[in-house]
Amino acid sequence: MDYSRLLPSEARALIREGKINTQTSGMCDGYAQANLLILPKSEAYDFLLFTQRNPKSCPLLEVGDVGSRLVKRMADNADIATDIPKYRLWENGTLVGEYESIENLWRDDFVYFLIGCSFSFESELLAADVPVRHIEEGRNVPMYMTNIECDGAGIFHGKTVVSMRPMTPEQAIKATSITASMPRVHGAPIHIGNPEAIGIKDINKPDFGDSVTVNDGEIPVFWCCGVTPQSVVMSAKPPVAISHAPGHMFITDVKNTLLKD
Amino acid sequence: MDYSRLLPSEARALIREGKINTQTSGMCDGYAQANLLILPKSEAYDFLLFTQRNPKSCPLLEVGDVGSRLVKRMADNADIATDIPKYRLWENGTLVGEYESIENLWRDDFVYFLIGCSFSFESELLAADVPVRHIEEGRNVPMYMTNIECDGAGIFHGKTVVSMRPMTPEQAIKATSITASMPRVHGAPIHIGNPEAIGIKDINKPDFGDSVTVNDGEIPVFWCCGVTPQSVVMSAKPPVAISHAPGHMFITDVKNTLLKD
Repeated sequence: MDYSRLLPSEARALIREGKINTQTSGMCDGYAQANLLILPKSEAYDFLLFTQRNPKSCPLLEVGDVGSRLVKRMADNADIATDIPKYRLWENGTLVGEYESIENLWRDDFVYFLIGCSFSFESELLAADVPVRHIEEGRNVPMYMTNIECDGAGIFHGKTVVSMRPMTPEQAIKATSITASMPRVHGAPIHIGNPEAIGIKDINKPDFGDSVTVNDGEIPVFWCCGVTPQSVVMSAKPPVAISHAPGHMFITDVKNTLLKD
Repeated sequence: MDYSRLLPSEARALIREGKINTQTSGMCDGYAQANLLILPKSEAYDFLLFTQRNPKSCPLLEVGDVGSRLVKRMADNADIATDIPKYRLWENGTLVGEYESIENLWRDDFVYFLIGCSFSFESELLAADVPVRHIEEGRNVPMYMTNIECDGAGIFHGKTVVSMRPMTPEQAIKATSITASMPRVHGAPIHIGNPEAIGIKDINKPDFGDSVTVNDGEIPVFWCCGVTPQSVVMSAKPPVAISHAPGHMFITDVKNTLLKD
């Protein structure tokens, strides 16, 4: 099935009815997709402050009211507890289950956080003829733990996770300019050129995702990655947290081009 | 005394010692100044969420840890309880006193919020030869209540307050481009041209500040204003809140030009 031409509202309806339970990459061409994190109100202040202090890793798109499953700003008529194809339940930092709906897990003290995703800037790079290697090679983007400490807030602290895309220097300049104008989806690169300077020992051995080919004359370009908040939250070990399953994102009604400031 | 050449650390030391207790406009040329709001932790989550939902009115520069008076990110070695020339204490939304230090009022559950200030983009406008009328006329910037509802969060909601600067259409385009690149100090204008469209009945009668001359061929350009958070907080009537006194800002160690994203 080709879901690229679906409207987000159509895709979310199929997801809600259980007719789509796959990864959302490539669905609803042109529309932004978002990472999900749900925490009880008791941990929500610290996490909200963490996102304020680390906007490149955790660019917030929307935060729900306490206990509300309704998405108001990034989508019309969406239910955060049913409109994502696959959820993960975490207890004390440990993955304890995957669910296609979390209606039965929802609590009155839950707060959801929708966080920008690099899918949005990748579509802008492709539109500007900047190639994206892992898409060309049909792989997941390579991601690495770095030695760059996040600016901690309350119980949340840890190292920054980055994603990497190899490019020619000319393409890297173009990509920097394009992504700098998109702070709500990670913004400009955090590093260009020297993996060791940010604590990455072997560019061919990513900590998450797949490795990709780096051609002669190309340099690695690193962006803050949406895995950072999940990684930091899981190491903080809150009693309960819910995230999307990797690649199974929330599809918004907002076009990628509107995430430019 | 001309304080424009002081370093921010020198100005803050004089303020802390009580040797400066005046407005800070014009001090420490080139360095950003910030609005202050202090709330107890019990109201801090709602306000932090309010700033996330209203970034053009409430561009956050820094949020302190609970109970901490230390400014860590926007300045080195600064004490938020002593380094502002004049503070205002609010109880249940009513102004109950002004103080040159709040050391004796500080509580272990207080959280400070530093919010970007239009002084920063005005200096960039002047540098680009865009005239700023209220500075030319030696007045306070005109500010207006609008009919633009803020995106509420918990106890905090209300209308957006805007500031206005009259310009030629050509200057308005230049000013829009310059301020769009400074989202941490209110960003691009929220409206250009028609005051009535945003609920302003008489451009010559601002709700706060002074009126300024609008010449033939000029249009009014409106930016979200840092008075919005104070206005919204005061109408929410928290049991206690502390702000800076108007014009008596916190002087940061960060240059205005670094507030461009």
